[in-house]
Amino acid sequence: MAGNSIGKEFTVTTFGESHGKLVGVVVDGCPAGLFLSEADIQGELDRRIPAEPKIVSGRIEKDVVQILSGVFNCFTTGAPIALIVGNKEADSSDYEAIIDLPRPGHADFPARVKYVGFNDYRGGGRFSGRLTVPLILAGAVAKKLLNRFDVDVLAYTRAVGKVKSDKKFTVEEIRKNRYTAITRCPDFACAERMEGAIVTARKECDSLGGIVECIALNVPVGVGEPLFDSLDSDLAKALFNIPAVKGVEFGLGFGIAQLKGSESNDPYTIQSGKVVTATDNAGGILGGISNGMPIMMQVAIKPTPSIGIEQKTVNLSTMKDARISIKGRHDPCVVPKAVPAVESAVAITLADHMIRAGFIPKVLEREK
Amino acid sequence: MAGNSIGKEFTVTTFGESHGKLVGVVVDGCPAGLFLSEADIQGELDRRIPAEPKIVSGRIEKDVVQILSGVFNCFTTGAPIALIVGNKEADSSDYEAIIDLPRPGHADFPARVKYVGFNDYRGGGRFSGRLTVPLILAGAVAKKLLNRFDVDVLAYTRAVGKVKSDKKFTVEEIRKNRYTAITRCPDFACAERMEGAIVTARKECDSLGGIVECIALNVPVGVGEPLFDSLDSDLAKALFNIPAVKGVEFGLGFGIAQLKGSESNDPYTIQSGKVVTATDNAGGILGGISNGMPIMMQVAIKPTPSIGIEQKTVNLSTMKDARISIKGRHDPCVVPKAVPAVESAVAITLADHMIRAGFIPKVLEREK
Amino acid sequence: MAGNSIGKEFTVTTFGESHGKLVGVVVDGCPAGLFLSEADIQGELDRRIPAEPKIVSGRIEKDVVQILSGVFNCFTTGAPIALIVGNKEADSSDYEAIIDLPRPGHADFPARVKYVGFNDYRGGGRFSGRLTVPLILAGAVAKKLLNRFDVDVLAYTRAVGKVKSDKKFTVEEIRKNRYTAITRCPDFACAERMEGAIVTARKECDSLGGIVECIALNVPVGVGEPLFDSLDSDLAKALFNIPAVKGVEFGLGFGIAQLKGSESNDPYTIQSGKVVTATDNAGGILGGISNGMPIMMQVAIKPTPSIGIEQKTVNLSTMKDARISIKGRHDPCVVPKAVPAVESAVAITLADHMIRAGFIPKVLEREK
Amino acid sequence: MAGNSIGKEFTVTTFGESHGKLVGVVVDGCPAGLFLSEADIQGELDRRIPAEPKIVSGRIEKDVVQILSGVFNCFTTGAPIALIVGNKEADSSDYEAIIDLPRPGHADFPARVKYVGFNDYRGGGRFSGRLTVPLILAGAVAKKLLNRFDVDVLAYTRAVGKVKSDKKFTVEEIRKNRYTAITRCPDFACAERMEGAIVTARKECDSLGGIVECIALNVPVGVGEPLFDSLDSDLAKALFNIPAVKGVEFGLGFGIAQLKGSESNDPYTIQSGKVVTATDNAGGILGGISNGMPIMMQVAIKPTPSIGIEQKTVNLSTMKDARISIKGRHDPCVVPKAVPAVESAVAITLADHMIRAGFIPKVLEREK
Repeated sequence: MAGNSIGKEFTVTTFGESHGKLVGVVVDGCPAGLFLSEADIQGELDRRIPAEPKIVSGRIEKDVVQILSGVFNCFTTGAPIALIVGNKEADSSDYEAIIDLPRPGHADFPARVKYVGFNDYRGGGRFSGRLTVPLILAGAVAKKLLNRFDVDVLAYTRAVGKVKSDKKFTVEEIRKNRYTAITRCPDFACAERMEGAIVTARKECDSLGGIVECIALNVPVGVGEPLFDSLDSDLAKALFNIPAVKGVEFGLGFGIAQLKGSESNDPYTIQSGKVVTATDNAGGILGGISNGMPIMMQVAIKPTPSIGIEQKTVNLSTMKDARISIKGRHDPCVVPKAVPAVESAVAITLADHMIRAGFIPKVLEREK
Repeated sequence: MAGNSIGKEFTVTTFGESHGKLVGVVVDGCPAGLFLSEADIQGELDRRIPAEPKIVSGRIEKDVVQILSGVFNCFTTGAPIALIVGNKEADSSDYEAIIDLPRPGHADFPARVKYVGFNDYRGGGRFSGRLTVPLILAGAVAKKLLNRFDVDVLAYTRAVGKVKSDKKFTVEEIRKNRYTAITRCPDFACAERMEGAIVTARKECDSLGGIVECIALNVPVGVGEPLFDSLDSDLAKALFNIPAVKGVEFGLGFGIAQLKGSESNDPYTIQSGKVVTATDNAGGILGGISNGMPIMMQVAIKPTPSIGIEQKTVNLSTMKDARISIKGRHDPCVVPKAVPAVESAVAITLADHMIRAGFIPKVLEREK
Repeated sequence: MAGNSIGKEFTVTTFGESHGKLVGVVVDGCPAGLFLSEADIQGELDRRIPAEPKIVSGRIEKDVVQILSGVFNCFTTGAPIALIVGNKEADSSDYEAIIDLPRPGHADFPARVKYVGFNDYRGGGRFSGRLTVPLILAGAVAKKLLNRFDVDVLAYTRAVGKVKSDKKFTVEEIRKNRYTAITRCPDFACAERMEGAIVTARKECDSLGGIVECIALNVPVGVGEPLFDSLDSDLAKALFNIPAVKGVEFGLGFGIAQLKGSESNDPYTIQSGKVVTATDNAGGILGGISNGMPIMMQVAIKPTPSIGIEQKTVNLSTMKDARISIKGRHDPCVVPKAVPAVESAVAITLADHMIRAGFIPKVLEREK
Repeated sequence: MAGNSIGKEFTVTTFGESHGKLVGVVVDGCPAGLFLSEADIQGELDRRIPAEPKIVSGRIEKDVVQILSGVFNCFTTGAPIALIVGNKEADSSDYEAIIDLPRPGHADFPARVKYVGFNDYRGGGRFSGRLTVPLILAGAVAKKLLNRFDVDVLAYTRAVGKVKSDKKFTVEEIRKNRYTAITRCPDFACAERMEGAIVTARKECDSLGGIVECIALNVPVGVGEPLFDSLDSDLAKALFNIPAVKGVEFGLGFGIAQLKGSESNDPYTIQSGKVVTATDNAGGILGGISNGMPIMMQVAIKPTPSIGIEQKTVNLSTMKDARISIKGRHDPCVVPKAVPAVESAVAITLADHMIRAGFIPKVLEREK
């Protein structure tokens, strides 16, 4: 136990459950001197749920963040920053009915065994997608901090089910357009087809997965602490924390396995007096250390396990086979919601590692 | 800095460089009472390098492990276990010549920038494949420990370059045959084609990547400490530590992104009085906790960056474009060597998490 | 930074400031299955401030705890337990006046330098005695947990200024009487003299320090993880976290330095079939591991630095010598308030180490 | 378990046993660019044992350090630094005889219970004074690093048994004279009386304890990470790791408990344009943060538990009372040997905290 913290210098600890009073986070190790307001964090939080109810669950919560500590006179103080968002609209009755019927693809069964039935199962408890809220709160602080050092973290949807965009995006397209379409794909034509696929899945009481892509810009050369705390190791650790993630790859990822060294190696060259690579097959990380190129990741998201279609399960009381058909309104596809969660996981890891590598000082210079 | 340890209860700290005196590891937190001999560890270590020199580098080191501490009267004592393997045959002259020419695909450039030139660059220093030796030493301890609790970790080659085996293996086939072929693929026909591909790549002074698959058996339900120290998070962190790994996925991994929930969810059923799932698309992990099914992982390995073919690079002294053609004998494909490294990374993580979850006690019962 | 957590298995993270919205704590790693209510915690919290206003500061806060997460159906769930207490009555005006005049004996000066002025100085911010509140909240959880395993942690006042009780107390006297007198000394005659000394100090606008003694009972043999995480090391670390602590000793402590080995060694003997020591000069810890005897600690508390008497200081703006006479009503002696804080620091450490050593399981058996 | 590491940025992990092959340490997180040779470390190591055999045990080991990794071309590389010292002259026969008779005051009994008899009991195993060797090795690296930043750590003997020096020493006296007398007391008249007391204790087959004092100079304002990782907390944790330490205090320590606030507060004043305190009753630490004044500590050392005088113990096999009279030649007083161990524990903690606070960069500037 005691596994609810991540990061060594910029340390994030989450608390709360889906149908409890609230969800929250303590960010310890944020340098003093960062201008930080609830509005900054609220802006990120608002991105979590696409405005358009067509593709998300009926449970629309207008989440409002509160800063409880660690900020004084609009600046971080160097003390732990506690942030919370209250829970609303929690209707737990659906869950009481299925307490003995673990939902396929959910953590219900292993959680019940692990915690011998003491876990808060309502709404998935700690295993709900709602737990991306504290991640996004911490991510908002991390992003504000990274921005002071010109580092940007941008995620977007690359694929939903079998609908995949093959477009290469410019950084500007990504920055400007990634939250425009409700499916969070900056290729608008494709975004519309993704939306269609989600709407169809919902009608069929089924669900879809997809792929989120993320790029981190302007990370200086030298971030990452090999061997074990290598940058890719810690990014992957943070990303697999997001519910539904089943794969993480950097640069060409699994595709690189089919190439030859002469094809996959990124040749160095000088550009405006700086060492760069002509390609970025490595995704900006070599030997666990950033090499100054954009850090590129792809993240596989599984289809939402909550579906209306009847599924086989077992009754844990009677230990007999059973059937379940999940009531309530669930997201037919969490990929769009995963986009800001991916940005947050990456931002938290980069903030931690940039402090560790000495690129972010312990106290910031006072902004003018 | 201080990033060379992994694990919270079973903590592994590595030291040493490719061309230094030795490489080694300290394993802290191994329970007292484990019967452990140098022969146990040597057996795992011998698996690192395929016997057949056709497909590996000319630098054949017969590595011999020494236990320095933590074992008394053939049993672990509960004190830190220090293990070392001496380095031999290190010819560093090739590296002096290219000190200013970072090898594409290697850590040379980011390491030089990060450590401002103080890093030991000989043979890649800390970033050499040789650093899988301490990983395997620690993995040997972890595997011995896991075996006491019936947990088995089995890895094998799934693909080399474009040669991929689509065969489904039984556990027995994997267990018995995975180290038989020098390419570590239990599909012998395919293994031979993989060997051919590697031999061809070597002739062309080029290199190949591939995919290693790993399965962990008999992990009990309830291993993993969500949210942040979830089992998949920590397995991924350990796996990305292995040089050349560019992707990690569990169960169907990226493939799951294209399915519907009704296809990807693993339905529960009762089998011999136990709850199991009919399929294992999740790869044995739900919500970051093991669900009792085999834990399945796939790991993407990039082509060895050291190739004889001339490549573009830069001269870091003159800051001008340059060319490099890497001398010395290098592995044309590290996939076979990565197999035992993957087993070790997985075993270390499982040992840590099984202690954390209380499945392995702090002191073992005395074996008869 | 990121120094606001303690404990490896039972991990406590505090947040909040003296004059902010609230103070709080996240307890991560408490086993599932502990019956825990707000009333349990409130009981401990109420002990923090002696009922009698004669010897404490005018700022009487009736602190009320709220459980925010980690408890479901009256039992802990294994998820992080977040606890908060709101702040009231905070009058920060006195602090604005002396912002440039560091109070002697306080953290004002080093905190201002460390955080370059961004720290929340109101009421001492993070350095206020108010930060013992989250410690006591976490301590209440730890004590409830320890009680399930028959471990008791009992602290009391041994000395206030020059008034020292030399009485040997029975365990029952300590247990029953330690919170009876407002000075928390179970030697009632002495307690009264202590009260007198405090009243006198208050009248003189001065303050007093003292000594708190603590005993932990029924700690089993084998708790403590030497070398570095030895039990005395971690108890001392936790105790020095309490504001105003300047010394920690175990057993005879500094007194042992004057004895001979033949006098200080605790001889073993058999008592009711158990190995015990005839004396407890070692204070229950040998080689960093509990030996089954009562763990005995003494803690030196410095006089409250806030005094009304005029003192020399400097003006940090003008960098000239200055004088300060601290307004507001401050405790003339924090020793009585330190008593429950000492119990908490010890209980937190013991809970952590009893889990680490395997004496407390990861999930508790369901209480009948 | 897994308790053999200390420090978050400058992390020290020890291994080895008293009568095993060797003792050693891995220092992870030492910045790259520190000029470091075996001679540097050997110099500190040679200080461990006073040259004069009159007052130390017969087991005179000329310990020789070997650097195994982490240093290249005479500079640290940023990789883990592994250091070892071989064991010699280990005669374990005395220990076999008393395996069932726990020595009073030693860790024999709790270690045997904790590790269920698997621990290496020879020569005390992990609990031997010999384990101060790896501490001193790591301390030597820390001191070299601190010296680059003008920080000095100086310890010396203040008392041996009832012989105590009341002299106030100048920094120069301490620096120059602390290792001159074999008892490591810079008050030479007193040092001689200490020596006499030790010789007498040896003749009587008895032993003595004492007090070691330590001062750290030039630590900048702002070192320490409150609340939990406060500087005094972490110094105390490191110091209690040294075998035989039973008390730690800062500044006036337990003496401060008897003073009034008006006497104990250190008034600020300006000296050569710098804020200083006129006295240093706080020992250089306020609120867990260094205040720029000398950091002053006192450490209580218990008498060596190994004495020739017959003592009561129990036979753990027969569970009957027994007697033991410890053979072999043991130090009649470990205070002189504790002096460099105290310096090391303090230096390691300061190095860690100065990196954490940003006063020591991750890579050092190249020395000319």
